[in-house]
Amino acid sequence: MIPTLDHTHDASATCWVESARRPDTEFPVQNLPLGVVREGDGPATIAVPIGDRALLLPRVSGHGDLATLPAEIREALAAPTLNGLMALGPDAARALRRAVFGALVDAGLESKLAPGLVPLAAVAPVLPALIGDYTDFYASVHHATNVGSMFRPDNPLLPNYKWVPIGYHGRASSVVVSGTSVRRPRGQTKDDQKPAPTVGPSRGLDYECEVGIWVGTGNPLGEPIPIERAAGHFFGLSLLNDWSARDLQRWEYQPLGPFLSKSFATTVSPWIVTTDALAPFRAPAATRPEGDPAPLPYLTAAEDQSAGGIALDLEVALSSSRMRTAGMPAVSLSRSSFASLYWTVAQLITHHASNGCNLAPGDLLGSGTVSGPTRDSRGCLLELTWRGSEPLDLPTGETRRFLEDGDEVILRGRCRRDGFVSIGFGECRGVVIPA
Amino acid sequence: MIPTLDHTHDASATCWVESARRPDTEFPVQNLPLGVVREGDGPATIAVPIGDRALLLPRVSGHGDLATLPAEIREALAAPTLNGLMALGPDAARALRRAVFGALVDAGLESKLAPGLVPLAAVAPVLPALIGDYTDFYASVHHATNVGSMFRPDNPLLPNYKWVPIGYHGRASSVVVSGTSVRRPRGQTKDDQKPAPTVGPSRGLDYECEVGIWVGTGNPLGEPIPIERAAGHFFGLSLLNDWSARDLQRWEYQPLGPFLSKSFATTVSPWIVTTDALAPFRAPAATRPEGDPAPLPYLTAAEDQSAGGIALDLEVALSSSRMRTAGMPAVSLSRSSFASLYWTVAQLITHHASNGCNLAPGDLLGSGTVSGPTRDSRGCLLELTWRGSEPLDLPTGETRRFLEDGDEVILRGRCRRDGFVSIGFGECRGVVIPA
Repeated sequence: MIPTLDHTHDASATCWVESARRPDTEFPVQNLPLGVVREGDGPATIAVPIGDRALLLPRVSGHGDLATLPAEIREALAAPTLNGLMALGPDAARALRRAVFGALVDAGLESKLAPGLVPLAAVAPVLPALIGDYTDFYASVHHATNVGSMFRPDNPLLPNYKWVPIGYHGRASSVVVSGTSVRRPRGQTKDDQKPAPTVGPSRGLDYECEVGIWVGTGNPLGEPIPIERAAGHFFGLSLLNDWSARDLQRWEYQPLGPFLSKSFATTVSPWIVTTDALAPFRAPAATRPEGDPAPLPYLTAAEDQSAGGIALDLEVALSSSRMRTAGMPAVSLSRSSFASLYWTVAQLITHHASNGCNLAPGDLLGSGTVSGPTRDSRGCLLELTWRGSEPLDLPTGETRRFLEDGDEVILRGRCRRDGFVSIGFGECRGVVIPA
Repeated sequence: MIPTLDHTHDASATCWVESARRPDTEFPVQNLPLGVVREGDGPATIAVPIGDRALLLPRVSGHGDLATLPAEIREALAAPTLNGLMALGPDAARALRRAVFGALVDAGLESKLAPGLVPLAAVAPVLPALIGDYTDFYASVHHATNVGSMFRPDNPLLPNYKWVPIGYHGRASSVVVSGTSVRRPRGQTKDDQKPAPTVGPSRGLDYECEVGIWVGTGNPLGEPIPIERAAGHFFGLSLLNDWSARDLQRWEYQPLGPFLSKSFATTVSPWIVTTDALAPFRAPAATRPEGDPAPLPYLTAAEDQSAGGIALDLEVALSSSRMRTAGMPAVSLSRSSFASLYWTVAQLITHHASNGCNLAPGDLLGSGTVSGPTRDSRGCLLELTWRGSEPLDLPTGETRRFLEDGDEVILRGRCRRDGFVSIGFGECRGVVIPA
């Protein structure tokens, strides 16, 4: 069942952490995403960002309602990853949210929780979970149409697109957390005019603005997940940059799909915004254009059609090293909406498991590049510069067809709805370093 | 460096386990593959098959040269997977091999090792390693040409094939060990004559006869593996059945490659035959047909060209439930050779890491279907029955275009060379159960 509203979404709730009450904070008490951080060389510790602080959960689990959580939840909080908590299912995540919320609005607990509250700037994020498998979908029909137009002008959208939530297996080992530098990959590329490929640093390095969907409880091998139950396997969302080397991709991808053009790095933002935090921002599944087929029955559920979408606004920003040297802020390249995707999260989960494939706690599903129908909503440079033919101008006078060494890509995400406190995702950052 | 011959390959060595001296054994003392087994509900235990016995290594690590192995190796042997041993690198694996060999040829140790020696029939294999990522290659040019001929008659082998070791990311979670039943997957299929796809059990279920390449030591993200050093990252081989639903594959695979048509199950044989055991069976890299390009420099090393191949003979056998009921043995469907592949193991490893992708101990690389140039060397039913148009006859009078419920697929592998004791891989088995 898709989570519904409760007292933890109440806009009038007041947190005793002052910075969490600022109107521009990404992390008000109504958010409470989960992640894992380190202080210096200390152990990886499960934490919740609140305002400009991080609440280190193992340090405060003896206080307030945290102290009365079931032992299995308290044990899971002592682990260096969220996998254990994810495996416990939605009720456990909800109980934890309510306990943390309760502690952070109870001013009487401030002195007790203080030792667990450290500046966000003083901790470094690590990957929130051990990712067993990473899958990348292709759920934006605008992205698929744009990319298809460049590579197959006569046939941009393949006949399966509107029936099958297209996806492919990605590389789990090279998923890194925000802030990790991304080395420009080397590889084979082939000029159409030349008889043989050459090997060297990619000259078509790109980002892809995506949303990462984290799996909570898994399913046994051989047992599909009916769409009515998919919400129970959905733990939360983060931002995801699926770095792509377009020149490698173009030469390697037939007939088995992208491989080395993607597997050199995928960046995720540190915090997983849980399905409970997303409750106020649920929206109907995106309306399909007239004439498009309805989803097949195994991908259709009334609840999912009415509330399977998520109103999450995304933004991509870029800063070159010259811009940073000159003290210029990053420049916004595009804005798009997760709610515009052709498939809902539940449809992606159910399709993935429909052949009996077993999903596991901590598995990561990328949404695919989130692009909208307009130029300023294109979620990667391949689309924005139309394969390099329409370069972007930067405020320094530089131009960009694809990413240059020193470029930093920053993804941001926000959920907004009238009557509710807006919540943010934190940034998903990465700087390109030379091959 | 590719392992060379030493005393552990000596054909005159005599093991005190009688069944290991039988000429038809797969597991003579010159083999000593590694795996993980359970006795009943007991713990997962690292073991070596010898004749018709399994030597449970943690139980005997206090005897003979095993007792003087470095502490890190002895600790790794106490684990429930081989990942720890794999991470220690080729010298550790070789030291372990020599110690086990020494103990099994020293008749004076028989009584001391007896408590660790149990019938193979009394233990059940489990997966030998925790597989972080599974990658599937496409390294048989005969398979690629056959499949391409069916789907793209005018253009069977794509222009990249002879330059790029084509591969794709597979699903790690659904890799299962030999003996695990495989549930027929359901999914979308589309009849060319109909306007919409339908959903149901696959009617094109197939096996693929492959070899599984296990990664030993890994490489850090961003640091490629030069081909001269690839052998140091190659731990060993097992057999691998990449079960495939051809009807799902045909509809879903464009443009991002196979997904649900493969991710329902991949079966590996229990034992990893180590690179040291394979030393006598090394062969030159397969000769490329005249006119084919030489591998690019990053995929070329003198040692790999002269000894990068492995003379491993493969066989696929099938038994239907009617055949088993009638007491008939499985029928052989094809035989092919791992040495015929277009790319060597080192080339696959080096290409995989050439963009900086990090491989890790326990990662699994499938070779792709190993087919030869002749009809009786085609490694899957898609090729053998030419997409169902040339059905196979079984001794019961049944015919097969694709697999039926109850069918058992058995892969077998053997290395042979004059003057050396032949070694076997053990079977890779799986029975198809209904959707």
